[in-house]
Amino acid sequence: MAMSDQNSLAPTLMGTCTEGESAQPPKFSQTLQTNTAMAASADGTGPPDLERQVPATGTSQWVLDAPEPPGLWREIADSLRDIALPHGKRSQSVKNTHSLGRVGSVLKGAFPVLKWCQEYKAAQFKNDLMAGLTLASLCIPQSIGYATLAKLDPEYGLYTSVVPPLIYAVMGTSKEIAIGPVAVVSMLTSSMLQKIVDPAADPTAYRKLVLTTTFFAGVFQAVFGLFRLGFLVDFLSHAAMVGFMAAAAIVIGLQQLKGLLGISHFTNKTDVISVMEAVWRSVPKSWNPLTFMLGCAFLSFILITRFLGRKSKKLFWLAALAPLISVVLATLIVFLTRADTRGVKIIKHIKRGLNPSSIHELQFCHPIVGDAAKAGLVIAVIALTEAIAVGRSFASLKGYRLDGNKEMVAMGFMNIVGSFSSCYTATGSFSRTAVNFSAGCESPLSNVVMAIAVLVTLELLTRLLYFTPLAILASIILAALPGLIDLNEAYRIWRTDKLDFLACAGAFAGVLFASVEVGLLVAIAISFARIMLVSIRPGIEILGRLPGTDTFRNIEQYPMATRIPGVLIISVKSSVLCFANANFISQRIMGSILAGEEEAGSVGDVRSNQLVILDMSNLVSIDTSAMHSLEELAKNLISCGVELAVANPKWQVLHKLRVSNLTSKIGGRLFLTVKEALDSFLTTKLAPL
Amino acid sequence: MAMSDQNSLAPTLMGTCTEGESAQPPKFSQTLQTNTAMAASADGTGPPDLERQVPATGTSQWVLDAPEPPGLWREIADSLRDIALPHGKRSQSVKNTHSLGRVGSVLKGAFPVLKWCQEYKAAQFKNDLMAGLTLASLCIPQSIGYATLAKLDPEYGLYTSVVPPLIYAVMGTSKEIAIGPVAVVSMLTSSMLQKIVDPAADPTAYRKLVLTTTFFAGVFQAVFGLFRLGFLVDFLSHAAMVGFMAAAAIVIGLQQLKGLLGISHFTNKTDVISVMEAVWRSVPKSWNPLTFMLGCAFLSFILITRFLGRKSKKLFWLAALAPLISVVLATLIVFLTRADTRGVKIIKHIKRGLNPSSIHELQFCHPIVGDAAKAGLVIAVIALTEAIAVGRSFASLKGYRLDGNKEMVAMGFMNIVGSFSSCYTATGSFSRTAVNFSAGCESPLSNVVMAIAVLVTLELLTRLLYFTPLAILASIILAALPGLIDLNEAYRIWRTDKLDFLACAGAFAGVLFASVEVGLLVAIAISFARIMLVSIRPGIEILGRLPGTDTFRNIEQYPMATRIPGVLIISVKSSVLCFANANFISQRIMGSILAGEEEAGSVGDVRSNQLVILDMSNLVSIDTSAMHSLEELAKNLISCGVELAVANPKWQVLHKLRVSNLTSKIGGRLFLTVKEALDSFLTTKLAPL
Repeated sequence: MAMSDQNSLAPTLMGTCTEGESAQPPKFSQTLQTNTAMAASADGTGPPDLERQVPATGTSQWVLDAPEPPGLWREIADSLRDIALPHGKRSQSVKNTHSLGRVGSVLKGAFPVLKWCQEYKAAQFKNDLMAGLTLASLCIPQSIGYATLAKLDPEYGLYTSVVPPLIYAVMGTSKEIAIGPVAVVSMLTSSMLQKIVDPAADPTAYRKLVLTTTFFAGVFQAVFGLFRLGFLVDFLSHAAMVGFMAAAAIVIGLQQLKGLLGISHFTNKTDVISVMEAVWRSVPKSWNPLTFMLGCAFLSFILITRFLGRKSKKLFWLAALAPLISVVLATLIVFLTRADTRGVKIIKHIKRGLNPSSIHELQFCHPIVGDAAKAGLVIAVIALTEAIAVGRSFASLKGYRLDGNKEMVAMGFMNIVGSFSSCYTATGSFSRTAVNFSAGCESPLSNVVMAIAVLVTLELLTRLLYFTPLAILASIILAALPGLIDLNEAYRIWRTDKLDFLACAGAFAGVLFASVEVGLLVAIAISFARIMLVSIRPGIEILGRLPGTDTFRNIEQYPMATRIPGVLIISVKSSVLCFANANFISQRIMGSILAGEEEAGSVGDVRSNQLVILDMSNLVSIDTSAMHSLEELAKNLISCGVELAVANPKWQVLHKLRVSNLTSKIGGRLFLTVKEALDSFLTTKLAPL
Repeated sequence: MAMSDQNSLAPTLMGTCTEGESAQPPKFSQTLQTNTAMAASADGTGPPDLERQVPATGTSQWVLDAPEPPGLWREIADSLRDIALPHGKRSQSVKNTHSLGRVGSVLKGAFPVLKWCQEYKAAQFKNDLMAGLTLASLCIPQSIGYATLAKLDPEYGLYTSVVPPLIYAVMGTSKEIAIGPVAVVSMLTSSMLQKIVDPAADPTAYRKLVLTTTFFAGVFQAVFGLFRLGFLVDFLSHAAMVGFMAAAAIVIGLQQLKGLLGISHFTNKTDVISVMEAVWRSVPKSWNPLTFMLGCAFLSFILITRFLGRKSKKLFWLAALAPLISVVLATLIVFLTRADTRGVKIIKHIKRGLNPSSIHELQFCHPIVGDAAKAGLVIAVIALTEAIAVGRSFASLKGYRLDGNKEMVAMGFMNIVGSFSSCYTATGSFSRTAVNFSAGCESPLSNVVMAIAVLVTLELLTRLLYFTPLAILASIILAALPGLIDLNEAYRIWRTDKLDFLACAGAFAGVLFASVEVGLLVAIAISFARIMLVSIRPGIEILGRLPGTDTFRNIEQYPMATRIPGVLIISVKSSVLCFANANFISQRIMGSILAGEEEAGSVGDVRSNQLVILDMSNLVSIDTSAMHSLEELAKNLISCGVELAVANPKWQVLHKLRVSNLTSKIGGRLFLTVKEALDSFLTTKLAPL
């Protein structure tokens, strides 16, 4: 009776063992004693063949016979190779083609323009032309506004909308991204660099610093791409980026109060408290109601047209053109009423003509170069994160894949060349990319059309912008900001993952109340602390058998799972068993065993545990401290009359168990699955009957 | 033919499904289309019941039906409860007994002496007496030596061997630990505190600082124990401790050169370069050959007796008594030859009498208290780590378990009381515990015997130590050091785990070439960086079916595992899928798919992959960035005509997949095991035939 009772616990997979093996089950009670004796006498320095002497079923022998895993050095080399050549087979397939084809494919790889140009049709060009012109109408006022945000002269915004888009059109892989200056990067540039050189006191030195920073940003981006270090950009988690963007939008919006209210003196600081204080102090003294009314009127106009554009597809064009219409109307109003004489600030002079060369303005002397490189790194990462996020989301809408590394190289080169031609850092813009997409762009050619339109503006139309009020630029920037604040996503993050939300909130609060760098550091620190916490979280799960299967799962996750009497199947909740949690976990396991004994009344009771199976499926690493703990746990369990078996150790973990002789210290009880460990135990218990 | 061919891939576990289910297999190609359409139209905000609409086999429905996992707050609360009450059932079992019994068990818990006293037999006392006297003979010279190492007057070492052992005997759980001053803690005390107050310039202020530090160390230890924060002590990994101890031994050894060479002026710094420089400079000027000869002679004597003691059990007593014999002989030699007049430095006056009270010497004024607390924390952790390591190793030799938290409380109280009675920090000594064990101790009573012997010495014998040369103290300390340097263990760590060895080497080099704090910080930083690296290491494993089983394992670890044609089974090498590795990993998966297609020639080929099964068994966490990557991966796979299935997501991961609606975006293909995912796919493929 007892036999059939016990046997029912191991019903199905018995047939997978060969007949001979099941006829001669391994006798664990015996092997345990001999092994313990051997381990005690040799004190961990037993003969190397000890593991082989332990009888094991065919499958658990597989566990012991696993080949040596790659060593640390080979793993490092493999990782580097993986990074350099993510598609293992690529080099091989290239080799098979002849050399001319290889040059062609390398060229096509570096310049995707060669690929899409061949398939380009005239019908597509009409769409690209329309999209490009729409883009230009939005880009010109935004570029001028963003240049003032970056504390540069307005023409630098326009310069940045000419050269980088042209380079990107040749090298980029995204069809939709609209390249040019963006709000967040402009704000980053001024907030990081005005601490080093005051743009009001020495605009030339400040401009040189900005150009040098742009050069470094480009170099970093290109290097990330060329060495396939794209994962470095991933270190800003999605949640952190959501928080960062929202805070940046608020900071930028507050900065616009200066233009919208027509205030003369304003703070250089970006944190919300300083800005509010400055507004509070300046408004009673120096605000200009006329400027404010003008700004608010056109801000409302832009926002209303956008709202209408979302409601009806037909009105999309109105929304796209609204900023340009606002500029034209506002300029006309000021020109006709001469409102500039009544305190409405205007752009005044914009330098006419094409981008001048700025190679001689780059500075690589000692104190500047370090600051520029540091700021360049931050700007490079933020710019890439924004551009790749934008590019990816639209690429997946159209169903093609973006090559992150190629994108980085393209962005890097466009910014390096940009820094030689009076551009500051350009990247893909959220708002303009959406407009480009909605306007029906078909290829990067829309960027080329836009660049040409901006070029024409620079050559011919700069004088017409003389009377454009600054308030209108502030309105255009303000109107672009709501797109950066994604409350839905923040709520989704909160709902999904509280700790991720903490990173999001940390980035938000850091940027808002301290500075951009503090915000980013806080977010990165929280993100990594969370990984650390999750990885070493102490705690155990108790596994049970799912009814009718040989699968063992967490009994809390699967309430239908039942525990096996006399056997405690345990899995560690964390993935790294190490100095920080191993002692705690082995104490927990001993605690469960002792609690089970107390419950059962006495050790001899059938309910008390006689076997602990440690399921190592989710352990990716184990260190020497943890192995000491395991050894101690095994000894303690033996002194309680309980056996320890290990199921499914991963390669590296298994290797360490073998090297440290722990396999023999636990009597060689290593199994492929929990089920086999259990079967093996039950067979041994039944054998004497 | 094709049907039976495909069917052979899913041979055994088919029988576990009920007949009805296998007769009507779920049609994935259909559900895929509808689900994709729904996901696209609803854009992630589908009806809450969406998941239920996806047909699923019985077992994979279990996955979807899992109850909500505990939220973040409940998990935090649970962790705190686990820490406070590690044995879940303890409170309950205490409740069942009546109140008098409860008081008794609480008292016995706090004072283990009440437990072992009841069972103590007269026969055991003889052993404890012998062990205690042996201990005292070793302890008295060592205590005086360690006091000079801590830059205190010699009597403070003796004081520290009186009070703490008495307290520990009442509260401690270890039977073997010998309590008193130890080399490493003495060195730590002087190296950390002499920077704040110079012991040569103001010995009284220095002594007060040492006592205050001892008080704080005791408080920290008691708090760790009372709040069950023992895991904080675990933050010094085993490997780091090996490196730290070895470097500390070398530093202490170098400091002893002062006493051994009879040099007067010496550096206060502890790093090896400063000490060697000081020795190099002082030796030609001021060394005393007589002192050096005396020291070397007795050092050789102690080392030779120890060597003999290890060879033969009978000579153990000689080895244990050698330090005392050396002291007596050396003192006699100096007394008889009056060598002190020829430059041999002697101890001179040792204050007679019992420990004086030192409560009034504790200082809690502003600048001192912070330094004392900081030093106290470091000393508390190092002292606990050493004591618990010693206690555990001997407990496991004798086959009983040490309660880490009770040990901490005992150590804490003994140091707090010690700081009130002129003791500096005491802990369990490596060398003396081994002697205690070898001398056959049976209970903590040997510590009491030792304390009484030291007390008698303080009362009656201090005058006899007047002529004891300092060189002999240096020899005794030097002789105790080799036990701290564990080259075998360092080699074992190197062989087992290269990164752990890096932490070990970091601690070693940091202590040796910089300072104790730097060494500890380096070791902790390396240990945590390693956890981080392992947890987010990007990389994938390809799984194959083990022949004759339904188990899927890494094909590199198990070379006999075979891949299923048309199916790519992937497991992530790391345990946390997050912002730092998710993009990289999903690119790797896409790369494998594309590589497979290239190999197969065309998409329609039978060899190209049609299903990707992502085995999530080892994923303990996933964040919002990773979920974005997974979503994108699923979309990209669909555009390649490949389906994505997820096997065995853990509770928290599953919860996040559900909350973020990712389950419906991948068509609800969540399975309990890889095998079921595969079967389900194969059944669908076969259904139309």
